[in-house]
Amino acid sequence: MARKASLSGFSELLPEERVVENHVLDVLRRTFELHGFSSIETRSVETVDQLLQKGEIDKEVYAVSRLQEDPGTSSGEKLALHFDLTVPFARYVVENAGYLNFPFMRYQIQKSWRGERPQEGRAREFTQADIDVVGEETLPFRYDVELALIVVEALSQLPIPYFKLRLNNRKLSEGFYRGIGLSDTAGVLRAIDKLEKIGPEAVATILREEVGATDRQAQAALELASVKSESMDFVDKVRAFGVEDELLEQGLRELSEVMAEASKRAPGTVIVDLSIARGLDYYTGTVYETFLVGHEKLGSICSGGRYESLASSGKKTYPGVGLSIGVTRLVARMLSQNLASVTRKVPSAVLIALTNDEAWSQAQDVADQLRRRGVSCEVSASAAKFGKQIKYADRRGIPFVWFLSTDEAGDLVHEVKDIRSGEQVPADPTSWMPPEEDLSPRVLAREDAN
Amino acid sequence: MARKASLSGFSELLPEERVVENHVLDVLRRTFELHGFSSIETRSVETVDQLLQKGEIDKEVYAVSRLQEDPGTSSGEKLALHFDLTVPFARYVVENAGYLNFPFMRYQIQKSWRGERPQEGRAREFTQADIDVVGEETLPFRYDVELALIVVEALSQLPIPYFKLRLNNRKLSEGFYRGIGLSDTAGVLRAIDKLEKIGPEAVATILREEVGATDRQAQAALELASVKSESMDFVDKVRAFGVEDELLEQGLRELSEVMAEASKRAPGTVIVDLSIARGLDYYTGTVYETFLVGHEKLGSICSGGRYESLASSGKKTYPGVGLSIGVTRLVARMLSQNLASVTRKVPSAVLIALTNDEAWSQAQDVADQLRRRGVSCEVSASAAKFGKQIKYADRRGIPFVWFLSTDEAGDLVHEVKDIRSGEQVPADPTSWMPPEEDLSPRVLAREDAN
Repeated sequence: MARKASLSGFSELLPEERVVENHVLDVLRRTFELHGFSSIETRSVETVDQLLQKGEIDKEVYAVSRLQEDPGTSSGEKLALHFDLTVPFARYVVENAGYLNFPFMRYQIQKSWRGERPQEGRAREFTQADIDVVGEETLPFRYDVELALIVVEALSQLPIPYFKLRLNNRKLSEGFYRGIGLSDTAGVLRAIDKLEKIGPEAVATILREEVGATDRQAQAALELASVKSESMDFVDKVRAFGVEDELLEQGLRELSEVMAEASKRAPGTVIVDLSIARGLDYYTGTVYETFLVGHEKLGSICSGGRYESLASSGKKTYPGVGLSIGVTRLVARMLSQNLASVTRKVPSAVLIALTNDEAWSQAQDVADQLRRRGVSCEVSASAAKFGKQIKYADRRGIPFVWFLSTDEAGDLVHEVKDIRSGEQVPADPTSWMPPEEDLSPRVLAREDAN
Repeated sequence: MARKASLSGFSELLPEERVVENHVLDVLRRTFELHGFSSIETRSVETVDQLLQKGEIDKEVYAVSRLQEDPGTSSGEKLALHFDLTVPFARYVVENAGYLNFPFMRYQIQKSWRGERPQEGRAREFTQADIDVVGEETLPFRYDVELALIVVEALSQLPIPYFKLRLNNRKLSEGFYRGIGLSDTAGVLRAIDKLEKIGPEAVATILREEVGATDRQAQAALELASVKSESMDFVDKVRAFGVEDELLEQGLRELSEVMAEASKRAPGTVIVDLSIARGLDYYTGTVYETFLVGHEKLGSICSGGRYESLASSGKKTYPGVGLSIGVTRLVARMLSQNLASVTRKVPSAVLIALTNDEAWSQAQDVADQLRRRGVSCEVSASAAKFGKQIKYADRRGIPFVWFLSTDEAGDLVHEVKDIRSGEQVPADPTSWMPPEEDLSPRVLAREDAN
């Protein structure tokens, strides 16, 4: 990642870096599928009208048009690249509702594009891994619990530093604000969302000047936001404010349910943090954010929440709960800070050496036999001295070189050399296997990364 | 695929259709990696200048610009979506040459975009799977042989009808044309390329009127194009023309080498077809095209060839050989003609039923144990009658439902039901496994598809 992208914001990985990214994607996919989530992809483009519906700042959107577009194209037909996977997914659900089984559990791993100013953690082209459950009209609350557990399970398998999944519930916050007499709950949330950036003083000013809070109300809202807990004691802390409100109670109940199960199954990973507001308006209950410990300034690597109406068509609404993992943000950090290393950069475990050009077809026979057992290998394209072929393997990190020769009786003799130890032994192409740890490139966490 | 895309040319798959596509992509990836190819991805956008360099018809290119672009953007900075993976790969190789080991073996599975008129086999957004080997200055010919074998191996594992990989060599054709006195060899190739579409009469007219061929020359060029063979007898057929040319001899030697190895390793799949010209100018030796038998009108599903200069920078040139599989074209045909079926549409092999709401956490324990052994499963989100939960599983195609109950001594009792046979048996969550064929959704070829 020391290399500079030839187009700012559109970085490209080297093969060894891509091994890291593929590992992350494979772990996510496997985890999501083990939990019963189906894969879908949506098209990369939406109509501009569809994308701007939710009030997204339009300069961040990349418009797409044929170089020689018909000048008469109306704005409803104008296309743009999607900037997230939620808007396209909502459209997909409505369009295909008749073909889907609800609750519909899907994951979606795709690129998105935003024309923002590039910086670390913010690329113009980036991969997101989204996981959502969507119901028709209703969706059991249990999915709010399960989704937290799934992302913790997925992230725990990655070679990354410790992370904390921060939890809150919009109903709790909004009920609290209402209970202390602040009716512009959305305004309070927006102010609280800025807490980490601008500090409590500035937030109090906004609350007083823009939301019409008294000193005491502003103080109470800030005190609620300061509640953080890795155990269930947040319930007592909230109760101690003595605020009574039905929505607050419901939020408290929901947050307790997520926290109770999460702290049991993933102790030390999940934290209640009542300052978590999430900028987006569509969340209506549980909200999640995830930070790498020691890398908080990178921003959240996995965020989401519950939305009572992901989409609606005619009379039907589709509530959902989901999270989005910022794969590019995460992988860029893993690479720039050397949080992980790869055991080799190519898939090949074995190079079949060629001692004379005529042996190529025989070498391919050996390769076929190895591949049938899942051993990745390549055959030298032309004959060369042993030393040169070993050097070729060494440069790529291929651990084994296979040699073919003919003995006095005219029979083929097979030997395999571990070029790291120099040990060379006879080998049978119909049964030889490399040690498990050499079968495929592995991605390892740097030991001192935590 | 009976559904109509909400945006013409940008079709989206249902979850069960995506199972088919993912199967195709997984087989390709596994095969490429078993042969030692590294994964890379390039950015989706290139500068317009870069894309139009090779003279691509510009109206097929999708330009990309921020909705509120600075009006002063010069054409060198204007962006567009790539229309294939070859142009971006060439740029990537030149930009990163210092970080790559040559010969560089890479595969690349990504979307591309073209603004063409949509029709079956031609989408505006489509996935290609490219595999290339690129050398620095030189590249052994053996890779021309190996790449043919790799794609045959990959395609043979897919649930598709028989296919034929058609082979030719540009040196052979060009040498032949030169040998019979036609110097505008590119013009002849362009005319021959139209043979299937317009027929021999029309091609002969072009050869006479545009390339300046005599009747005899046109006739000879057409006769060469009529040579097709599944064995090595094409060599004698070409020699029988009595044309002498050094380039022709070299092409004949190269084509023989590919054909000899391919017909030995994949008998019946590879065919020499001297009418294969490939439209693109940059091929300089071996050319490949692949057709599904009985679906020839769909067009080639896998094409490519050798190019002496994929890219060049300063004094260095990068010769390569590669093929591109049209994944979207192939999968769209598999779906529209029901060439393949899936055993189920969701990953889950097991639904853990909930007989009462309090058992959810216990049910998650069972799910954890199953998942640890790679068994995909989901837990019911709320309690319901057995019949309703079985119906839920049935609708999704989940073959097994797991029931938890408590016996008189207060111990947990586990039972699992195969809802297809109705058989229900006691099961141990620490060891139970579904039959191998039920572990994951499988994609099967329709038996009468061949």
